[in-house]
Amino acid sequence: MNRAGLPSVRRANPDDARAIAQLLYDFNHEFDEPTPRVETLEQRVVHLLRGGDTVVLLIGAGPDGLAALRFRDAIWSCGLECYLAELYVIPARRRNGLGRALMEAALHQARNRGADTMEIGVDELDHVARHLYENLGFSNRSGGGEGPIMYLYELDLHN
Amino acid sequence: MNRAGLPSVRRANPDDARAIAQLLYDFNHEFDEPTPRVETLEQRVVHLLRGGDTVVLLIGAGPDGLAALRFRDAIWSCGLECYLAELYVIPARRRNGLGRALMEAALHQARNRGADTMEIGVDELDHVARHLYENLGFSNRSGGGEGPIMYLYELDLHN
Repeated sequence: MNRAGLPSVRRANPDDARAIAQLLYDFNHEFDEPTPRVETLEQRVVHLLRGGDTVVLLIGAGPDGLAALRFRDAIWSCGLECYLAELYVIPARRRNGLGRALMEAALHQARNRGADTMEIGVDELDHVARHLYENLGFSNRSGGGEGPIMYLYELDLHN
Repeated sequence: MNRAGLPSVRRANPDDARAIAQLLYDFNHEFDEPTPRVETLEQRVVHLLRGGDTVVLLIGAGPDGLAALRFRDAIWSCGLECYLAELYVIPARRRNGLGRALMEAALHQARNRGADTMEIGVDELDHVARHLYENLGFSNRSGGGEGPIMYLYELDLHN
């Protein structure tokens, strides 16, 4: 526990792959998204953690939540860019500041690793997450909040 | 020239780094965005192309336009995810289908390389690009067009 009474955040290693896979599975299952089996996700998580461009942060004894970060070399600077791929807290532990603690640790991790920017794709209806991100200084307007809205476009290449 | 009278698209190699750097510089300069010097961008482009996660497609003799793609291992599948980082056509060659030709080649490249999805961050006011992406099947709504709007949030980690 840290001083605020929150469980501390720790960086996952490949031994945590099963627990991470279970959280990812529960995440998609909760929101009725298709998901691979836990065993399949576990193998993928091991692969990603060993690859070096992925950092997973865990909080709580369960663990009870995760933040998955992806890093790559930036184009416009000699630093890195960071993408928050997943942020999840199990339902029973929500509204306790775990998401915020994960995000603060994610920002610390990204800065320490030399990232210039962090980006996140968010649904308009995900009001809790959007409020958290905005509270931490993120904006969905270019120019740090002054410019036009930034949309995330996607195409499924199998269609 | 291909059958439609458009210059063909080719995949850049490190020898094209200077030309790519000039296009990137011109891109940001045109839109009053800060940009590193061409020489600095050239070194960065060499680094990125050698790194293996970046593909740059070029069109025209100048070259007159580029598409920059970034690839990484997906989390939810054993495939790749592709991000269209930059798409640019020089002003004198616009409205001639070069952007569309670059995008079609980008989609071909992404599918060939094993990507499941392609994502793009786009400003709401960039109507020409949005029209092109939507025409190719991209959507800024989750679930392939049925769900809520997807926003791209960003934070400058130096602030």
